Amino acid sequence: MTPIETITAFIAAWDEYNLEKIYSFMADDVEWTDIPLSTVNGIGEVRAKMDGFPGVEACGFDMHHIAANKNVVLTERTDWFDMKGKRRTIRVMGTFELNEDGKIMKWRDYFDSAEFVREFGDLAEG
Amino acid sequence: MTPIETITAFIAAWDEYNLEKIYSFMADDVEWTDIPLSTVNGIGEVRAKMDGFPGVEACGFDMHHIAANKNVVLTERTDWFDMKGKRRTIRVMGTFELNEDGKIMKWRDYFDSAEFVREFGDLAEG
Repeated sequence: MTPIETITAFIAAWDEYNLEKIYSFMADDVEWTDIPLSTVNGIGEVRAKMDGFPGVEACGFDMHHIAANKNVVLTERTDWFDMKGKRRTIRVMGTFELNEDGKIMKWRDYFDSAEFVREFGDLAEG
Repeated sequence: MTPIETITAFIAAWDEYNLEKIYSFMADDVEWTDIPLSTVNGIGEVRAKMDGFPGVEACGFDMHHIAANKNVVLTERTDWFDMKGKRRTIRVMGTFELNEDGKIMKWRDYFDSAEFVREFGDLAEG
């Protein structure tokens, strides 16, 4: 698979919210950064992060643009999650760096923390 | 010039903060959106926006990654501005769509509004 094909397949795994399939695209030492929030290191922390993000009824990453330069794939997306009966939407750009095995070793998503709180903040309040 | 060459030259114009050179890369009907903030439409509004952003002593857009897909160029950058004796830095991803003449017709930058306020907020206070 080309890097664009890999990331397209990774996004498709999100679209079906198949967590094991999502993890299968990541290197064991993956570094996943939500630029305005935090970084998790390694697949174990990724699993813990996802476990802390419960109750996803459906989700999708709508891809607006995707482009690659060697092993680096840049994306512009609108991501949405249906949680607690409400659609939560966030505008995102993200960079994916693939290792020699074609696994995601770094993922950095850029978005506005205010938009994130507006859309997801009620979940933190329980 | 290829789309990547065009955007690389556009960024170089920012690095020298040459406003007329910056504008020369933009279509007359350019649409420039700072995702968490606002959109300006047309080169006249771009000029007004830049006039409202005074006192830049130096600036640079440090490019981490750039990739193109046809006429669309995606970038990951750290932008910095020296203003009032202080370096202000913001982590950004941006999409540039070029028209048939190779001019920028759409520019969308994604960043965290909290980071923006932290770095630039004192300027608004006078």
